Amino acid sequence: MTLHKAFIEEIKLGGVILSRLMPGDDLFTSLKKIAKDHRIERGIIVSAIGSLKDVVFVNVRPHTGMPVKTEDMIEIEEAGPFELLSLEGNLFPSHEDGEPVIHLHAILGTSSGAVTGGHLLKATVFATVEIILGSVAGSSVYKAKSDVTKRMELLKE
Amino acid sequence: MTLHKAFIEEIKLGGVILSRLMPGDDLFTSLKKIAKDHRIERGIIVSAIGSLKDVVFVNVRPHTGMPVKTEDMIEIEEAGPFELLSLEGNLFPSHEDGEPVIHLHAILGTSSGAVTGGHLLKATVFATVEIILGSVAGSSVYKAKSDVTKRMELLKE
Amino acid sequence: MTLHKAFIEEIKLGGVILSRLMPGDDLFTSLKKIAKDHRIERGIIVSAIGSLKDVVFVNVRPHTGMPVKTEDMIEIEEAGPFELLSLEGNLFPSHEDGEPVIHLHAILGTSSGAVTGGHLLKATVFATVEIILGSVAGSSVYKAKSDVTKRMELLKE
Repeated sequence: MTLHKAFIEEIKLGGVILSRLMPGDDLFTSLKKIAKDHRIERGIIVSAIGSLKDVVFVNVRPHTGMPVKTEDMIEIEEAGPFELLSLEGNLFPSHEDGEPVIHLHAILGTSSGAVTGGHLLKATVFATVEIILGSVAGSSVYKAKSDVTKRMELLKE
Repeated sequence: MTLHKAFIEEIKLGGVILSRLMPGDDLFTSLKKIAKDHRIERGIIVSAIGSLKDVVFVNVRPHTGMPVKTEDMIEIEEAGPFELLSLEGNLFPSHEDGEPVIHLHAILGTSSGAVTGGHLLKATVFATVEIILGSVAGSSVYKAKSDVTKRMELLKE
Repeated sequence: MTLHKAFIEEIKLGGVILSRLMPGDDLFTSLKKIAKDHRIERGIIVSAIGSLKDVVFVNVRPHTGMPVKTEDMIEIEEAGPFELLSLEGNLFPSHEDGEPVIHLHAILGTSSGAVTGGHLLKATVFATVEIILGSVAGSSVYKAKSDVTKRMELLKE
């Protein structure tokens, strides 16, 4: 099995869930619970707007090569709160154990008008998050650790 | 009736509207007109790309607690023009009078490569905005002023 | 025929394609190939997450008027790599020759936590791009050079 290759598949957007998350909710835990309760094995963030606090995100250092090493990834922790300006990403099952792997990139607004963000590791809802999660039907894609990038990547057998 | 609680509901994405907005158009007025003309009571921004000018947005100050006070929200006014890099958000009817409440977060690009943005209060189309608005079917969610955050939040009775 | 006017049309989101792009892939070439292979004449980016390198983007200079002149557009070239935090945009056929015109705005995260981005001219996949392209059905919109903005704009005859 090659763990690192391109693929293209035709999918369908199935059931769509609208949820309001509450102050203090953990974003990742909340998304996993929604997915489990509504039997969404594979899904994408269709829309998200609100505010976050206690955010941890990571970005890749300039001039990093492949495979990406741990020291090339810079982790940033910020108390916020921030406006959640954009949330992109998806949820696919781990190839190893079927557990959901959530991949999220967030963009955050600050009171100076400056914007920050990155690959999200942790976030707590501040005032609200209005989120729409769309289920992906007709897909057989998993997440597995790539031999090349050494990170969890989408895999179609 | 509790004005502040979490909810999850299964919705459907219904009719989808593609529109091109023109130079000088007010973004909020244009969205309200599209929604009214096409009888979209509840909707989400599916995609938006273009450029904006005369933008007013607001962001929350660091270390703000709950409820959010007016002085915790910093308003920024910028002439631009800016590339409209991302527009997230939705439209739900006010619980009070049924009028559409539009909640938008914008991310804006500047000629230095810096990016700014926040919770949008006002914006005018510069060259174009290519916008796709998706109607939300099967939802009974309203916008109402939360007792806790003191802002307009999504409410499901 | 007026090349510069507003329009509103009801469309449908048709077939949806999920693809993983690979390190070194050209983003624009990859999108064109996906669209051609799956006969997507008109489409939108539904979701995209990953990382990019060797990026060229352009933003409009402050206080620019209409029509936008070449010297009002500032081109920025960056080696990266960057986290791809947001990718908005669409693909419509050229009115002149039917060839796909891709309009993309990207937002990129850097290791300092700063965010950059703009109207994308060129980008190469760094580690991965997980992209979902939705086809737009029921549309008769083209891209044509506007007499007013002097840029390629959406046109409905």
